[in-house]
Amino acid sequence: MSSSPNKLKVHALVWQDRQLSVLDQRQLPEQVHYDNFATAPEVAEAIKSMRVRGAPAIGIAAAYAVALSVQQHYAADNTEWRQQVAADITILAASRPTAVNLFWALSVMQEKLALMTGSPVINMINTALEIHQQDIAANQYMGEIGADILADAQGLLTHCNAGALATGGYGTALGVIRSAQKRKARDIFAGETRPWLQGARLTVWELAEDNIPATLIADSAAAMLMQSGKIDWIIVGADRIAANGDVANKIGTYSLAVLAKHHGVKMMVVAPVSTIDFAMPNGRQIEIEQRAASEFLPDYYAQENSLIDAWNPVFDVTPAELINVIVTERGAVFNPFEQGVSELK
Amino acid sequence: MSSSPNKLKVHALVWQDRQLSVLDQRQLPEQVHYDNFATAPEVAEAIKSMRVRGAPAIGIAAAYAVALSVQQHYAADNTEWRQQVAADITILAASRPTAVNLFWALSVMQEKLALMTGSPVINMINTALEIHQQDIAANQYMGEIGADILADAQGLLTHCNAGALATGGYGTALGVIRSAQKRKARDIFAGETRPWLQGARLTVWELAEDNIPATLIADSAAAMLMQSGKIDWIIVGADRIAANGDVANKIGTYSLAVLAKHHGVKMMVVAPVSTIDFAMPNGRQIEIEQRAASEFLPDYYAQENSLIDAWNPVFDVTPAELINVIVTERGAVFNPFEQGVSELK
Repeated sequence: MSSSPNKLKVHALVWQDRQLSVLDQRQLPEQVHYDNFATAPEVAEAIKSMRVRGAPAIGIAAAYAVALSVQQHYAADNTEWRQQVAADITILAASRPTAVNLFWALSVMQEKLALMTGSPVINMINTALEIHQQDIAANQYMGEIGADILADAQGLLTHCNAGALATGGYGTALGVIRSAQKRKARDIFAGETRPWLQGARLTVWELAEDNIPATLIADSAAAMLMQSGKIDWIIVGADRIAANGDVANKIGTYSLAVLAKHHGVKMMVVAPVSTIDFAMPNGRQIEIEQRAASEFLPDYYAQENSLIDAWNPVFDVTPAELINVIVTERGAVFNPFEQGVSELK
Repeated sequence: MSSSPNKLKVHALVWQDRQLSVLDQRQLPEQVHYDNFATAPEVAEAIKSMRVRGAPAIGIAAAYAVALSVQQHYAADNTEWRQQVAADITILAASRPTAVNLFWALSVMQEKLALMTGSPVINMINTALEIHQQDIAANQYMGEIGADILADAQGLLTHCNAGALATGGYGTALGVIRSAQKRKARDIFAGETRPWLQGARLTVWELAEDNIPATLIADSAAAMLMQSGKIDWIIVGADRIAANGDVANKIGTYSLAVLAKHHGVKMMVVAPVSTIDFAMPNGRQIEIEQRAASEFLPDYYAQENSLIDAWNPVFDVTPAELINVIVTERGAVFNPFEQGVSELK
């Protein structure tokens, strides 16, 4: 039933007809709907509104958006096209603050553009396509590394969606789960991931698309599930990794890491090297995006003078001490709290 | 702004015109709607469908339901009325398995009925009214005991709804928060409490009704909130307490207790003595109700042959070692893991 490693069934981003097709993840699982974007500000809006989400996918979308910007503004007689592209990059950089892959992809595209002579349109499109393809290849390789580490572990719990939908394809945490599942059947659990329900709407959907059975749990049931002995590993992605191995990821990841420690469950983080912010010494400096209270505060309380508010941080930071292994396409770092992840630079 | 201790604004259960009026908590906060019930099976259905929920409130509703049953079936010429009442009690006992107050209230009503001669209708109604009034008085007393223990603690986090809505009135955990808030303003946080959102729909609603400001969080954000140092105490109710001090309560309570331990945050359980199951030596034997996957599994997966299922335990068990104090109307037991709670018998 399992698909071959190179055959991807789920695509968050598709480049076609010189446009970027973006799967609107807000409509999953009920609707599989793609929007086509021809300009960078449209893509920035798609990132901000979470049509596309997941650190690596945001980076890839931003790379395509820079290519779209060049395609739109470049012309032999337009002397201001570089400024116009720079303005678009500024808009893209402001779309979401926490994931570092966004800034990484923008800087790769900028460097390429700065060095380029002649017509840059095809070159920039090809650079974005390369970033996309390299991400998929990195995921597939991380999948194998992670599956080696899991060995015969039976119970796997993931959080949020670090899957094909969050990346170029295949997935980081879900890439490891896909690769592990190909070797033998596992018991796969997904936290629903409030407030946005990435687990309930995206993770179990893409697992089912790949014929992988899974069990959804309320986030707050994870502790009881670990207490029951059914979980061997927590496997998650990352939005930003500091040089010392601290990991910013979806709100609730830190909670799972503390609970895992208490129950003797192991914690694996899977992310491409572009997720590592080598310039950030530790996780305390990572800017944590706060989203609107309305994402989960009932409308009833949205009145003026309401005594009820909501606190909605979208990410939390898990200290390196609580992480057993960080898997990247340059290899795995065990016990990152000992030396950080600088060896991957 | 605060109301006097004896003036209750929120009523889950009201006895009037020889019927039981039940606030339909599924419609809160948008609608304040009461249904009137004249028979015990209707009340059992109201418990099962969670129109009324919360261990003490379920017990009180069941007591009224027995009175309704006697009122319906008792007649001088009906020789079978005792069997009919017994049949209703069987239906009530099957409504929800975890909260022990239900069984406690049914047994109080049964004992009273067994000893009664002459017309039992008024006597049974009065017994139910007494159970209700005693619960409110117990809550108010526990509120003061709990507030004494909290002293100047500033940051309080509660889970689910252990408030006026879950009890005869005033509340257990929220009773302590009400009493503490009267002494000085605190920073009150409520977990939204998936899957049923008792925190988002009920707890912040009843706090606002009492002019108490509160901040709602996603359950999975509690760890980050504790990491930030903003929480001094977790305060929760209980559905059943074993003799050794283990506590069954809403799913997610055990998670909070483990997280509290990790962060040096204290854990308070507030419950009337009727919540204690002295016959149960420890929490491992407590039957944990499993509710339908559909409570949080998206409809999309409810197809035949779906590879996706959900695991929906409604309660979890927190070992006594993780609890700092259990507050009851017979006093507080500190560090219950040392000697259990038998001293309260």
